[in-house]
Amino acid sequence: MRVLGLDPGLRITGWGIIEARNNHLSHVADGVVRSDESLSLAGRLAQLHRGILAVIQEWAPETAAVEETFVNRNPASTLKLGQARGVVLLAPALAGLDVAEYQPSVVKKAVVGTGGALKEQVGMMIRSLLPGARLATPDAADALAVAVCHAHHLQGLTALVRAGGWR
Amino acid sequence: MRVLGLDPGLRITGWGIIEARNNHLSHVADGVVRSDESLSLAGRLAQLHRGILAVIQEWAPETAAVEETFVNRNPASTLKLGQARGVVLLAPALAGLDVAEYQPSVVKKAVVGTGGALKEQVGMMIRSLLPGARLATPDAADALAVAVCHAHHLQGLTALVRAGGWR
Repeated sequence: MRVLGLDPGLRITGWGIIEARNNHLSHVADGVVRSDESLSLAGRLAQLHRGILAVIQEWAPETAAVEETFVNRNPASTLKLGQARGVVLLAPALAGLDVAEYQPSVVKKAVVGTGGALKEQVGMMIRSLLPGARLATPDAADALAVAVCHAHHLQGLTALVRAGGWR
Repeated sequence: MRVLGLDPGLRITGWGIIEARNNHLSHVADGVVRSDESLSLAGRLAQLHRGILAVIQEWAPETAAVEETFVNRNPASTLKLGQARGVVLLAPALAGLDVAEYQPSVVKKAVVGTGGALKEQVGMMIRSLLPGARLATPDAADALAVAVCHAHHLQGLTALVRAGGWR
């Protein structure tokens, strides 16, 4: 199964695609979609939307996941991130994919083994788990981490279903 | 010129269309797009997106405006509203329309004459300015108010350009 992970941001949204097969994960592609700060807010959101749809068309993921946003104490930043996040959640939904959401601590636990891991630890584990990852920016590493988390959860569900433990 | 006003919300997004011609405003249509609370967040955002695109296709506005969001003190509410607002800004931009943004006080001043007007006063003025408005909910009244504000600003610009005062 091909999994898309997304790390939303108005200026830079990270994306990562992995392949999960027989409990083995492998790297497919990663990168970022940027918006042009000289455009209007609506224009920037349209850039993000088109960029994410292009990634979905090129790499044909079967399922998607987005990191739940850390709610900042600064309301203006929270609003800005919320606007980007709405658009980032929308694109895979319009492409017909299920879109899961995971809290940052759940993503860290899935990748590093502890919910309180540092950002650098996540990047190092992603490099080690997924040889070949480009990780042009930390946003792409975060997006791959979300994809890994989602793959673990999907595989866990599959294993439980096979064992008859999940109805 | 046909103007679309939008009042964003995750549960209910209000919309209103007016026609501005020779300094006269008339009501064309108004209503709301609702999202189904039983769906995932991504599914709800997709409902809002499709609903707004359907309004744009049916009524063919030439320009759009969205109220700038009141930044709530509750970060979770601000994030939720931000996500809806991102999707509401995106739809007209994807349809090729310019999307203006106005602060609530600017909208109130345009409709009632004072930036500190109450919500009820805005609704009453909209009823009086735009006979025929359905105003099924306050969200539709707010959306028509944004459209009126945008029309005033566009007409002001046109008048200034005609008078040679704006380059």
